[in-house]
Amino acid sequence: MITSRVDVTHVQIEHLKTLVTGPVQTSESALESHGHDESAWPSVSPSVVVYANSTEEVSAVLKYCSQEVIPVVPFGAGTSLEGHILPVFGGISLDVTNMNKLLEIKADDLMVRVQTGMHRMELNQRLSSYGIFFSVDPGADATLGGMASTGAAGTTTVRYGSMRDNVLALTAVLADGTIINVGRGTRKLSAGYDLTRLLVGSEGTLAVITELTLQVYGIPEKMAAAVVRFPNLAQGVEAASLIVRSGINIARGEFLDATCIRNVNLHDGLSLAEAPTLLFEFHGSASGVAEEAEAVREIVTEFGGSDFEWTTNEEERRKLWQARHNAHWAGIAANPGFRSISTDAAVPLSKLAEAVKIADEAWSASSFNHAILGHVADGNFHCFVLTDPKKPGELEEIRKVSHEITSKIIAMGGTCTGEHGIGVGKIDDLVEETGAEAVAVMRAIKAALDPVGILNPGKIFR
Amino acid sequence: MITSRVDVTHVQIEHLKTLVTGPVQTSESALESHGHDESAWPSVSPSVVVYANSTEEVSAVLKYCSQEVIPVVPFGAGTSLEGHILPVFGGISLDVTNMNKLLEIKADDLMVRVQTGMHRMELNQRLSSYGIFFSVDPGADATLGGMASTGAAGTTTVRYGSMRDNVLALTAVLADGTIINVGRGTRKLSAGYDLTRLLVGSEGTLAVITELTLQVYGIPEKMAAAVVRFPNLAQGVEAASLIVRSGINIARGEFLDATCIRNVNLHDGLSLAEAPTLLFEFHGSASGVAEEAEAVREIVTEFGGSDFEWTTNEEERRKLWQARHNAHWAGIAANPGFRSISTDAAVPLSKLAEAVKIADEAWSASSFNHAILGHVADGNFHCFVLTDPKKPGELEEIRKVSHEITSKIIAMGGTCTGEHGIGVGKIDDLVEETGAEAVAVMRAIKAALDPVGILNPGKIFR
Repeated sequence: MITSRVDVTHVQIEHLKTLVTGPVQTSESALESHGHDESAWPSVSPSVVVYANSTEEVSAVLKYCSQEVIPVVPFGAGTSLEGHILPVFGGISLDVTNMNKLLEIKADDLMVRVQTGMHRMELNQRLSSYGIFFSVDPGADATLGGMASTGAAGTTTVRYGSMRDNVLALTAVLADGTIINVGRGTRKLSAGYDLTRLLVGSEGTLAVITELTLQVYGIPEKMAAAVVRFPNLAQGVEAASLIVRSGINIARGEFLDATCIRNVNLHDGLSLAEAPTLLFEFHGSASGVAEEAEAVREIVTEFGGSDFEWTTNEEERRKLWQARHNAHWAGIAANPGFRSISTDAAVPLSKLAEAVKIADEAWSASSFNHAILGHVADGNFHCFVLTDPKKPGELEEIRKVSHEITSKIIAMGGTCTGEHGIGVGKIDDLVEETGAEAVAVMRAIKAALDPVGILNPGKIFR
Repeated sequence: MITSRVDVTHVQIEHLKTLVTGPVQTSESALESHGHDESAWPSVSPSVVVYANSTEEVSAVLKYCSQEVIPVVPFGAGTSLEGHILPVFGGISLDVTNMNKLLEIKADDLMVRVQTGMHRMELNQRLSSYGIFFSVDPGADATLGGMASTGAAGTTTVRYGSMRDNVLALTAVLADGTIINVGRGTRKLSAGYDLTRLLVGSEGTLAVITELTLQVYGIPEKMAAAVVRFPNLAQGVEAASLIVRSGINIARGEFLDATCIRNVNLHDGLSLAEAPTLLFEFHGSASGVAEEAEAVREIVTEFGGSDFEWTTNEEERRKLWQARHNAHWAGIAANPGFRSISTDAAVPLSKLAEAVKIADEAWSASSFNHAILGHVADGNFHCFVLTDPKKPGELEEIRKVSHEITSKIIAMGGTCTGEHGIGVGKIDDLVEETGAEAVAVMRAIKAALDPVGILNPGKIFR
């Protein structure tokens, strides 16, 4: 097992150069750019950055690293929020961003096959002329392989599911270099253990994903967006919960507090009223979206929602959701010099208002500025907490507050992470949530698939 | 490892009686009733039948069996179609049907918690007054634990998903008796490896499931059913594929050939025209279902569909779908003295017509009578093949034809099982489909979790 930092030797680096056709880099800038993600965890540089250009090259690198006991951290867009790509034990940052081909579009089967390094936005640009789209949309323009590895979700998960639901099959490379093909390009599958869903969300600790078969959807005939303001957080959250429970088939249901609205107004040139706000989207036929919008209007009005506006204007709709996707960066842009921590809790819908209140009160009582936003239709919300990178001691204090909130969330039946994953920051929370026995099973699977422990050590488990 | 039949000794049986509060049976009738499922594979009796009444009792039994190297086969309704509950290496049939409590109804969260032995129909009877329902509906009134273990699906999977999508969390007992709680009662989860979905569909080979948290849905405001006939199989299948690809939000889309229609007419007292037939269901608002039915009518008419009829009459709708659920038993009832094999293939939608044609031609060229039906909206279909139990040699011949068809299905990108699982019958097909490397990963996981190999040996792997 790897228990301390591994520095790759000159001889090993020379050998790695024979295994890949892409660059093998040790420059300061390459190491630095592969040493941090969008989280606020301190940077850690790898020993070397290796660019692989094919599944076979990934296989050759992993086989060699298993022999030499060199840690390997797969690297995509570097947009994870829990330190997934930090090479905390040194070794190799295995950059797969040049494996970015769209391999196959099967529009008739509502499926596409992509290489791991393709970005989600490029995929959707390429698909739009076929009348289909890939639904999972985290804020960042992440790579699809990274999204699969972290089990990403987004604003449309309430309707179309997360990566766990939309990766049908994949090719991956095990620690010893073995290439496996798991899952199937079919809408149903019951053939043996569900290795696809085991690898999705395994955060690069079990295998390196190199290709994905993804489910896509027909672009709906009509899409409409709606905005509504609330006098306070609680009423907005309660309204959102009831809308989902009532079975209205919304495609998106997002909450932003007044601070978030102010930030996105500044960042994206909008002029939304600075109040707790719900954003909705409806997908369907013209009459269907009108019917759904009306049903939502009725419920939000009951909960004190005002200024309900809805639109089928495509440009307005796009602008609104782009602003929502930019909320994280809008928050950073509004606070120059600061970095942010994004917490990530999910609870049963009936507990959402209570959970948001607990988090809001805890952060309000702390010395940190915060904002709250969330995929409320899924019972999932984030606190956006600001920290001054010149005061590294703040991180410890933020962790403490965050852990106190998380303990309460877990006690009420919630989870420490709805979509960001465990990474380096939630290792203890995972044990608290699911129990030492279940974590021991995860460890046993890890040991069976990666006995030397080279794959992304220090993530999920200590 | 267990390589030959294990007969439980008298001393062991006496000890087992001290571990459970339920019966421990060795009578001929108990052994016989636990020695076969709904498949045509030959019966194999266990040494002893043990009824467990709690998770703790399951734990005590498994701990003892690991020590004593006694095979354990979990037993629910006994309705599986691939020999899952056959104790091919003897040992214990662990009957969990007395663990059948509905533990919790969380209507506001659209979740319920049940014990493993609860039957799906009883669950829905109990839920109906809350305005919610559990969606997964295989033909049989299976236990929910059995449905989870085999990764069951049904007629509503196109809209609401299979067991893989609707089991949110579960309690299970590992081979050594360790009790684990995995997953979470939240709509989103990204906390470590997805052990829930690893155990769902693992066919009792990794753990014994004792409790389940299930996602449920609000009963739609309006439900409508539709029936349409086609001049031939191919046109019906093509129409169904196009309907799904066009994004019409159907809740069910089923195909039955003329023989199936004749069988269900006889069995359930219907008078449907004996022709290749598609059945649809629509869930939504009154105007929504009307709109969808009209969209479907337009497409089926293009493909030669005739006599399109739709109804929102609740009794007619129920009667139609009950008949569809009885199709398997209707086929057996129509052929007294025969048993049946139900094949189970799924392909990408664009290949469905071709795959059904291959299967239809192969069975037509054989000496066996067959019928074809399927969840065509999911690209999943079954051939219902009759065999005379007095001629056991027929099974070998049926396997041969079935394997030839399966090889072609796999070659066109399909799977050997969309919903029935691997069991004892498709062990070689699994290797052909996903490759020896992926199966080796499954075996490594099995070895890590059940090192002695007591859990349902002889299933999924040889």
